[in-house]
Amino acid sequence: MDRVLSSELALHAGERVRLAGWMHRIRRLGSGMVFVHLRDRSGICQIVVEAPEAIASLDGLLAESVIEVEGMVAVEPQAAGGFEIHNPTFIVLSAVTDALPFPINKPVINAHLDTFLDHAMVGLRAPSKQAIFRLSAAAAHGFREALDAQGFTEVTTPKIIGTASESGANVFAIDYFGRQAYLAQSPQFYKQIMVGVFERVYEIGPVFRAEPHQTVRHLNEYVSLDAEMGFIKDHTTVMAVLMDVIRGMLSYMAGHCSRELELLHVGMPLAPEVFPHVYFPDAQQWIYEHKGEDCRGEPDLAPQHEKWIGEWAKEVHDSDFVFVTGYPMVKRPFYTAPNPKDPRYSNSFDLLFRGTELVTGGQRLNRFDDYARALEARGMTQDAVAGYLETFRFGMPPHGGFAIGLERFVMQLVGLTNLREAALFPRDMERLQP
Amino acid sequence: MDRVLSSELALHAGERVRLAGWMHRIRRLGSGMVFVHLRDRSGICQIVVEAPEAIASLDGLLAESVIEVEGMVAVEPQAAGGFEIHNPTFIVLSAVTDALPFPINKPVINAHLDTFLDHAMVGLRAPSKQAIFRLSAAAAHGFREALDAQGFTEVTTPKIIGTASESGANVFAIDYFGRQAYLAQSPQFYKQIMVGVFERVYEIGPVFRAEPHQTVRHLNEYVSLDAEMGFIKDHTTVMAVLMDVIRGMLSYMAGHCSRELELLHVGMPLAPEVFPHVYFPDAQQWIYEHKGEDCRGEPDLAPQHEKWIGEWAKEVHDSDFVFVTGYPMVKRPFYTAPNPKDPRYSNSFDLLFRGTELVTGGQRLNRFDDYARALEARGMTQDAVAGYLETFRFGMPPHGGFAIGLERFVMQLVGLTNLREAALFPRDMERLQP
Repeated sequence: MDRVLSSELALHAGERVRLAGWMHRIRRLGSGMVFVHLRDRSGICQIVVEAPEAIASLDGLLAESVIEVEGMVAVEPQAAGGFEIHNPTFIVLSAVTDALPFPINKPVINAHLDTFLDHAMVGLRAPSKQAIFRLSAAAAHGFREALDAQGFTEVTTPKIIGTASESGANVFAIDYFGRQAYLAQSPQFYKQIMVGVFERVYEIGPVFRAEPHQTVRHLNEYVSLDAEMGFIKDHTTVMAVLMDVIRGMLSYMAGHCSRELELLHVGMPLAPEVFPHVYFPDAQQWIYEHKGEDCRGEPDLAPQHEKWIGEWAKEVHDSDFVFVTGYPMVKRPFYTAPNPKDPRYSNSFDLLFRGTELVTGGQRLNRFDDYARALEARGMTQDAVAGYLETFRFGMPPHGGFAIGLERFVMQLVGLTNLREAALFPRDMERLQP
Repeated sequence: MDRVLSSELALHAGERVRLAGWMHRIRRLGSGMVFVHLRDRSGICQIVVEAPEAIASLDGLLAESVIEVEGMVAVEPQAAGGFEIHNPTFIVLSAVTDALPFPINKPVINAHLDTFLDHAMVGLRAPSKQAIFRLSAAAAHGFREALDAQGFTEVTTPKIIGTASESGANVFAIDYFGRQAYLAQSPQFYKQIMVGVFERVYEIGPVFRAEPHQTVRHLNEYVSLDAEMGFIKDHTTVMAVLMDVIRGMLSYMAGHCSRELELLHVGMPLAPEVFPHVYFPDAQQWIYEHKGEDCRGEPDLAPQHEKWIGEWAKEVHDSDFVFVTGYPMVKRPFYTAPNPKDPRYSNSFDLLFRGTELVTGGQRLNRFDDYARALEARGMTQDAVAGYLETFRFGMPPHGGFAIGLERFVMQLVGLTNLREAALFPRDMERLQP
């Protein structure tokens, strides 16, 4: 008999079916009756066990035992989905006789985060935890779908690199056959190089940051959704693609994860056709005038400033997303293109989501001479980035791109309080296991 | 005027259009006339330049200069695609005045592989090189699409790991905030753990092998297409999914990359509904009887043996793919499930593609006690794999999976002679740049 999923019972009302999955919950009533909740990849269904032999076959089994069930699909308006299984017989595929480190069949997992992470192997089976990572997979799928539709090509660039070139700081060193190598902090240089090949590229892959910060908003390894495109007018062309991508991600999630969104009580964010945007010095002026804090002339926005701008976008523009454009050149990397009308500021942007930075992007320099000047102005040598620079000797169009932190996106969307909850097996300064 | 792509000229016959791209080739005729081939992400089109001012605006420009063109779309049966551009005017976005390290506008790139790889930044722009990586992206897309359709969930597992657990050998060591950590050789343990969460998972990501081999078939970083699934009967359930995936990858490539397949003269492989398969000791017996070489009792097949089996599959079964099942347990990792009828052999398989190993897979152990015995038999401690083992204390179904090396798949498909040609920026013992 072919296996049926718990979500498919309605198709088999009145039939005997075979199910398989984890014993999510077992309740043994005083009357002798037993209720089993069976969890499979499609959801959970209830099995009513009354026959003494069937009850005996579950003797001693604890939650998470893996079982096969044959039984009759019966209408039961009280049961989730409207159906349950009667007259079951069981085959035990894998018996669990140890108690779980913490229960995973409650709506909320009460384990301390460290305890949870130590036992993520089983903790992730909890439906509310599963839901986070189904959303995460859907976000990545939506990202791809939106960019595929716009003629982007997916690329895979190396994670082991020969020179710690992009910033020099915060890179992990590797012993590479006796030589020193490094883990890539981002695919920035490679995705720019690949604009010369495919015009429009994206990459979904791990990035590695040796930042010595142990906070709720840092991971030392995370997933970066990177895109880069050529033949742009300036950073506003990149912003237009990014808006399309964000809406694509949200709509993919809405279309594929309604159950998960409901389970996690996620309200879909307001993402209008055009996100509001504010020029960096104008944002500072607005803060000065409306919030009484004078941050004018400072080179960056503080978290509180971003929060205020997020509130403004929501109240005035009905948007959970808002661009801040034109960050000062001094705070942006050497490859950033300046605003031609005021070169103190850059043709770059951050996208704030619910008042916190989610995406960084902008236009890049595209001429070799501009790179040579930018490196000199920052006291950097051309040698360290020689391979990258060669690209710009051989014809590069105006181009730009952006990077979205996948875990951060999911954290903000779901309202998680710690970025570690958005990574399957997070890596931080202290944590390398499991 | 909106930009038009070179592949869209037929839609604009008789109109003036704006194009942008790289000057793939420039031919200055004695008559003064100039022919420019413009390359953009959709292909190449020809521009005929006759007006003296237009010719003058291209003065001194070498191949790969980035230009914008406005001109008239004219029917020209001789031109590729049947159209070309007349009466153009040019804007130079990025002038190239240095000669390329080697020409990239020839059908075949004649540079030595090392020279090519040193300058991959521009070498990859050659249409024949682009085509390889478009095929590679399509292969990954086809893999995803096939598994999405079968209820698999995409996961991302950590690449920095705390213990060099899977084999202990051939791992790269990292300095992780003063502690030793390692780069993941494969997502094997994590994808098995995730079967407990989602039943069916896949991951596309980099893997890192510190193998000290400098051959045409080794890379130290490559892309692994990994899948793992629960509730299998045995390895044959996994093989059925793999056949579906391989056919899905090929059909995605055929549907999306006809131009690339043609350019690279790729004959699509024979992939019947059911691939032929042969049991390991039977393969050895067949080799003994038909090829006169006695390899019976040896624990593995040599490359020549795989080649013979590939030829047999092609001749007798019209298939470029053939499974060899039941590899001896001694050559398989500790998590491999034995053949219950003859535990010297395993419930595992290799899939050969055109006579070379492409995929390894099989059924895994799923009970804690079996793991404990398998580790003891190999003299391994439980401590080194404690987190992974905990998974099996808490209910795991019979499961199995496989891993496809993406670069190897593309190499075999296209008929490349060196695996480095299938990686954008390959990493080997000597090469960390670009």
